[in-house]
Amino acid sequence: MDYSKMSPAKVRQLIREGKITGQTSGMCDGYAQGNLLVLPMAQAYDFLLFTQRNPKPCPILEVGDTGSRLVKIMAENADIATDIPRYRVWEHGIMTGEYTDVSHLWRDDFVYFLIGCSFSFEGELLSAGVPVRHIEEGRNVPMYMTNIDCIEAGIFHGKVVVSMRPMPADQAIRATSITASMPRVHGAPIHIGDPEKIGIKDISKPDFGDSVTIKDGEIPVFWCCGVTPQSVVMSAKPPIAISHAPGHMFITDVKNSLLKD
Amino acid sequence: MDYSKMSPAKVRQLIREGKITGQTSGMCDGYAQGNLLVLPMAQAYDFLLFTQRNPKPCPILEVGDTGSRLVKIMAENADIATDIPRYRVWEHGIMTGEYTDVSHLWRDDFVYFLIGCSFSFEGELLSAGVPVRHIEEGRNVPMYMTNIDCIEAGIFHGKVVVSMRPMPADQAIRATSITASMPRVHGAPIHIGDPEKIGIKDISKPDFGDSVTIKDGEIPVFWCCGVTPQSVVMSAKPPIAISHAPGHMFITDVKNSLLKD
Repeated sequence: MDYSKMSPAKVRQLIREGKITGQTSGMCDGYAQGNLLVLPMAQAYDFLLFTQRNPKPCPILEVGDTGSRLVKIMAENADIATDIPRYRVWEHGIMTGEYTDVSHLWRDDFVYFLIGCSFSFEGELLSAGVPVRHIEEGRNVPMYMTNIDCIEAGIFHGKVVVSMRPMPADQAIRATSITASMPRVHGAPIHIGDPEKIGIKDISKPDFGDSVTIKDGEIPVFWCCGVTPQSVVMSAKPPIAISHAPGHMFITDVKNSLLKD
Repeated sequence: MDYSKMSPAKVRQLIREGKITGQTSGMCDGYAQGNLLVLPMAQAYDFLLFTQRNPKPCPILEVGDTGSRLVKIMAENADIATDIPRYRVWEHGIMTGEYTDVSHLWRDDFVYFLIGCSFSFEGELLSAGVPVRHIEEGRNVPMYMTNIDCIEAGIFHGKVVVSMRPMPADQAIRATSITASMPRVHGAPIHIGDPEKIGIKDISKPDFGDSVTIKDGEIPVFWCCGVTPQSVVMSAKPPIAISHAPGHMFITDVKNSLLKD
């Protein structure tokens, strides 16, 4: 089955029926996918404030009404508790289970946060003729802990996590211009060039994801990464949190190109 | 005394000492000024969510920690309860007093919101050779209620208020490009051309501010306006709220040109 040309509504329906339980990479060509985080209302204000203060690592696509599973802005007729192929449940910062449906766990004090994902800007880079190395090499994007502090908010604090894509200088300029116009999916790079300047000692050893080839004459370009909010939340150890499982995203009805604003 | 070339820190000091109590328009050339809104924590989550859902009318520059009067991001050594020349206090949506200092009213459950202001992008328009009619004519900018709904959040809902600047088409294009790069001060226009399309019946009769001349061949360009969050909050009638008095703004240490990001 080729899901790349299928509509987001149809794919979400198959996910809801349990007929798709795998990763969503490559599904619904051109449509934005989002990271999920669900928190109880008691932690929601601090987290919403954290995202306001740190929009580059934590670009919000949509926040649900308290207790609501309904997605209103980014999709039609979508249920955040059933329309993601795989969820993870975290208790006090520790993963305690994976589920393909979390409607039985939903509480009326839960708030969901849908967070923008670099899949969206990679689509725009490829359309603009900027190749993306880890896609070429069939790997996960390399990600690194930096020495850059997030601005803290209530219980949430930590370092910025970045993703890295190597490219020649002319492409780095084009990639900066394209992503600068997409603030809802991490925006412009946070750093270009020397990894040590942001506390990365060995570029060949990412903290998450896979290493990729950096060719002669290429410079590493670093973007804030959606792993930041998840790592910050897990280290704050809320009594309960629900996230998507890595690579198993929420597929929205909004085209990546419309995230330019 | 010429305050236009004085530093924001020095002007805020004079305001704190009660030596400046008037409007801040024209002070500290090139530095961003912000609108103030203070709410109790009980209403702060709904309002923060409202601003997240409506970033064009409600672009947040900074949100304080609960109970804190300290400005951390937009200025150094600034006290939000003393460094604005004139405040208004609102009880259940009704203005009950004006003060030049609100430190005696401050509570440990208060949260302040500093909201971007179109003064910032007007400075950038003027620098780029785009004249601004209401400045030329020495009037307040014309503002209109529209038929465009804000996305509601908790107790907060209402229509978008817009400001209007007339200009020839070539300048409208340049103004769109400049303001699109400044999402933290309302961003790109919300509408260009026919006022009726957004529910404005008579362009010569603004709902707030003053009427300005529209010359032959000019088109009206509409931006979301910082009056929106204030009008929405006042109609939600929180038990208490504090705002700046019109034109009496908070002067930040951040240059307008740095609000492009």
